[in-house]
Amino acid sequence: MRLTAFSDYALRVLIYLGAAQGRLATIAEIAAAYGISANHLRKVVHHLARQGYVETVRGKGGGLRLARPAQAINVGAVVRVTEDSFALVDCFERGAGPDCRIERACVLKDALARALEAFLATLDGYTLVDLLGPARPLARILMPPASPRRPAAAASS
Amino acid sequence: MRLTAFSDYALRVLIYLGAAQGRLATIAEIAAAYGISANHLRKVVHHLARQGYVETVRGKGGGLRLARPAQAINVGAVVRVTEDSFALVDCFERGAGPDCRIERACVLKDALARALEAFLATLDGYTLVDLLGPARPLARILMPPASPRRPAAAASS
Repeated sequence: MRLTAFSDYALRVLIYLGAAQGRLATIAEIAAAYGISANHLRKVVHHLARQGYVETVRGKGGGLRLARPAQAINVGAVVRVTEDSFALVDCFERGAGPDCRIERACVLKDALARALEAFLATLDGYTLVDLLGPARPLARILMPPASPRRPAAAASS
Repeated sequence: MRLTAFSDYALRVLIYLGAAQGRLATIAEIAAAYGISANHLRKVVHHLARQGYVETVRGKGGGLRLARPAQAINVGAVVRVTEDSFALVDCFERGAGPDCRIERACVLKDALARALEAFLATLDGYTLVDLLGPARPLARILMPPASPRRPAAAASS
């Protein structure tokens, strides 16, 4: 059982931008910080922008920042819009059909649906603030002085 | 987010054998009932046998049956031994390493681990008896009179 890399990266982008505390960050910088592909991140950032989590400032010195306060970004809500499917087993995706004989009497599907609800309800208990930790040590880890690029760094604190 | 087909099939095999109520069933018969590959099922059945859920009676008229009462088969426990990984995101599988800069301060991993616990704890609340339903309608659906093969059917009820 796993989440998509898309969800993983989306959460990491939000963590990075939360740790940056409003300082504009670039996709290249976030990709470098996590050692992941900037190309993949571009799609993730585009999706997060469409969903209202991230906003882009264009032009020289531009970049990304959170579009809402970290405490208004719920982890469960993010995962709900970044996972492409919560079909835990094949039959979640199909309507009643001939593929599974037991569909009309199947309790397993209900059991899995409840387990999925419990999973998401747990994540609903976290906001981005929780992921950043009380002392914001992530900012120090992610944005050390030797960071490869720090656009608009002077305006960061 | 999804379970492996292996887990899906394992649960369906157990449901089938539970519905059969001790009557010996064959892999071919279970595969036909669900419209899935007998080859895949063979590996699943082998694993379930190794884990003590299923036992095999060899020879003519032989087949499979549950190795324990349905109420002693916990759904959460089954999923724990049929899923090959619960690494919800990549970093669950790695030790602390250079791949993710935030690993040592990461709260996300804890949040996901708790969500996974909630998922499995929900499934822990179900036994195979629950999946079979109170009136065992699955037996009627899975094993209609026109079923393709009914070895030892005379001894089934």
